[in-house]
Amino acid sequence: MGQFSSPGRVALQIAMAVGAEGETLAARARDHGFAVVTGKAGSMDVQKIIAAVETAAKREGLIDEGYRAEHALYHATLDALQGMGRGHLELGGILRTLGLRFAVVKGARIRGDAEGPWLAVAMYGMIGAPRRGHEHEVCGLGVNHL
Amino acid sequence: MGQFSSPGRVALQIAMAVGAEGETLAARARDHGFAVVTGKAGSMDVQKIIAAVETAAKREGLIDEGYRAEHALYHATLDALQGMGRGHLELGGILRTLGLRFAVVKGARIRGDAEGPWLAVAMYGMIGAPRRGHEHEVCGLGVNHL
Amino acid sequence: MGQFSSPGRVALQIAMAVGAEGETLAARARDHGFAVVTGKAGSMDVQKIIAAVETAAKREGLIDEGYRAEHALYHATLDALQGMGRGHLELGGILRTLGLRFAVVKGARIRGDAEGPWLAVAMYGMIGAPRRGHEHEVCGLGVNHL
Amino acid sequence: MGQFSSPGRVALQIAMAVGAEGETLAARARDHGFAVVTGKAGSMDVQKIIAAVETAAKREGLIDEGYRAEHALYHATLDALQGMGRGHLELGGILRTLGLRFAVVKGARIRGDAEGPWLAVAMYGMIGAPRRGHEHEVCGLGVNHL
Amino acid sequence: MGQFSSPGRVALQIAMAVGAEGETLAARARDHGFAVVTGKAGSMDVQKIIAAVETAAKREGLIDEGYRAEHALYHATLDALQGMGRGHLELGGILRTLGLRFAVVKGARIRGDAEGPWLAVAMYGMIGAPRRGHEHEVCGLGVNHL
Amino acid sequence: MGQFSSPGRVALQIAMAVGAEGETLAARARDHGFAVVTGKAGSMDVQKIIAAVETAAKREGLIDEGYRAEHALYHATLDALQGMGRGHLELGGILRTLGLRFAVVKGARIRGDAEGPWLAVAMYGMIGAPRRGHEHEVCGLGVNHL
Repeated sequence: MGQFSSPGRVALQIAMAVGAEGETLAARARDHGFAVVTGKAGSMDVQKIIAAVETAAKREGLIDEGYRAEHALYHATLDALQGMGRGHLELGGILRTLGLRFAVVKGARIRGDAEGPWLAVAMYGMIGAPRRGHEHEVCGLGVNHL
Repeated sequence: MGQFSSPGRVALQIAMAVGAEGETLAARARDHGFAVVTGKAGSMDVQKIIAAVETAAKREGLIDEGYRAEHALYHATLDALQGMGRGHLELGGILRTLGLRFAVVKGARIRGDAEGPWLAVAMYGMIGAPRRGHEHEVCGLGVNHL
Repeated sequence: MGQFSSPGRVALQIAMAVGAEGETLAARARDHGFAVVTGKAGSMDVQKIIAAVETAAKREGLIDEGYRAEHALYHATLDALQGMGRGHLELGGILRTLGLRFAVVKGARIRGDAEGPWLAVAMYGMIGAPRRGHEHEVCGLGVNHL
Repeated sequence: MGQFSSPGRVALQIAMAVGAEGETLAARARDHGFAVVTGKAGSMDVQKIIAAVETAAKREGLIDEGYRAEHALYHATLDALQGMGRGHLELGGILRTLGLRFAVVKGARIRGDAEGPWLAVAMYGMIGAPRRGHEHEVCGLGVNHL
Repeated sequence: MGQFSSPGRVALQIAMAVGAEGETLAARARDHGFAVVTGKAGSMDVQKIIAAVETAAKREGLIDEGYRAEHALYHATLDALQGMGRGHLELGGILRTLGLRFAVVKGARIRGDAEGPWLAVAMYGMIGAPRRGHEHEVCGLGVNHL
Repeated sequence: MGQFSSPGRVALQIAMAVGAEGETLAARARDHGFAVVTGKAGSMDVQKIIAAVETAAKREGLIDEGYRAEHALYHATLDALQGMGRGHLELGGILRTLGLRFAVVKGARIRGDAEGPWLAVAMYGMIGAPRRGHEHEVCGLGVNHL
């Protein structure tokens, strides 16, 4: 499988990209037929991170205004947050803070799949105590049918 | 931050690498001072995946035979599996199967940190029903002090 | 087994009832020896839903003022909320809101059981994004010995 | 809202129905445009219950052979099992056994919704110790976009 | 509050006792009006530990043969296991093994409480990898109304 | 094994001690080579309890100002809170409040272990409804390599 053969890897590569590399990868992913939205979020409130992902995806038209797409995106986002939180979804509630870059990618589940589009939400960032530098890396990926 | 500035990103890049790119990345990561172990696992039993990671890390000397390092690796592996399982650690027990590539990376938590080594366990693969092709991508990352 | 043979089914039927049917079912359940309390709640705070159930049960005398009965009701309520939340108890904390009708039913665990009363807490409603109409059905049932 | 206005209530009513009433309700639900599949399962293995639901839904053509529909049904089934298990998905693994009737209903999320079909999986039954009669009622509902 | 004023502390002290001290504490607890059962268990299967506690409590008459008491004890035992497992109830399923001493204590919730007896299940032991000496301490306590 | 042979038992004994006995036990534990910090906390906010433990451990020099030790203590504290919360980390969020005494103990994992120090965080207290006396005992223990 190639680097652009599935939306999850594409989303993860973009979320983890260093500097301007993220935009380059997003452009190449769009050339391969994926829709891509990226953004940053930092918060002690999980709901603000969920809202940041949803707002970006709607603003750039990756999903429409209906409930089906929102429902699909919401659960992909929660799944990504499970990887970030590793057992707990709370942030400030258990005295930790999170800063991350996210990417939402829409496209075929794997190359050649004709069943319709899927969504991948990837997040990569740093989680830790509310004290500068007291943090380590975290990552999350959620994939859902649209 | 550069591509090789922290063990989590290094481990994720290697776990997600396509074909021979993984070995190239591992070699470059070693040049940057990281110890790297990679492997593959596929199972409906979570314990077999945990064992595959631990066996590889011990065989290649990334961790020693003591309990401290094993305890650090075990919890980093469980954290990675939280991202893979997204709310449940069961595989066959809830009728799903998992195939993945993993990377274990040992090194400074971030560039310039002098507090001692950390471990990152990254996994990337496909989870799904026990039926060929009925699966989607998953990813997980666990980071722990050694 | 008949429609009024156990407190869980009775509570669920009342919580799901359409319009005035709920009061009819509650009256028939009381004829069969059950104590029944019903109410509505809508919130992004889980604790307000727990409080609404407890307040209704105490106000109508379904449980007394002691801690034993409160403890039994609390855990039956948490169990019902597990069905509503499906893996997470948070509402607003993960950007979702909940509106529901609940029923608390006290009586024999099954027809003919002479071991003493049990409590059933049933909830049925709509969960979704904080946006009108972006929601779907949820249900929960908790059963505990009193 | 009427008794047949949403797939979750329809599925719950059928799963909880006493005797032949379930078939009557299923027939009326089909008259209202819903596709309905029902069945029974009893096991100490969660995967057998998941498989029973999926097998019934495929055999009766409620979902097709593709992965999208299977993915939607799988997650609706897991959500229903969260209500049944209330915090744990294990059955025999924590020394308990489960017997249930289930209903899978496909149709509009609420009356008048034109966004496409949703799936509801409802379960109602008895959970308890592996000893005759040592059990109480449980219920679960999962709803997902198809 | 004194050392024998509540069943949870009594159960914990007995479960953690060194050598013959446990029997001395149990005898003194009985003098204070508590019923006490103790035992040991070691397993990679959670259900065997649940069964060991239940079997001991029934054999020594601490609970009767009915379902109410069994239900109360079961949930107190699960609560104790939450402290032992800290987020996961699996043992062998996530490649770890557990050896423990347990105590079940029946009596007033706190000194002077007249609402009826409660159950406390305490466990103390070692959890770790299936390799001699690769383990650390764990503890759990569950309290429920009888 | 003796009463002072491992940090978990030492921490639990001190957290459960009645009156002045806690200071006596702490002094004896220090004679056996353990570092010991104790304190009290009461809150409906989990983060305040985490902060109370961390603040006490840093103020008395049990851990240094670096991130490694803070990370080790944080996860030991979360593990202890799993035993206190038994399935949920929320307190006020699910309408309950917690008062506790805690002890943090640093030392060899078991007598004779030469691999370096471990941390044990023990908590013992009362959890319940926000109403005087409506509460029961809870306990938790977390153990981590430093």
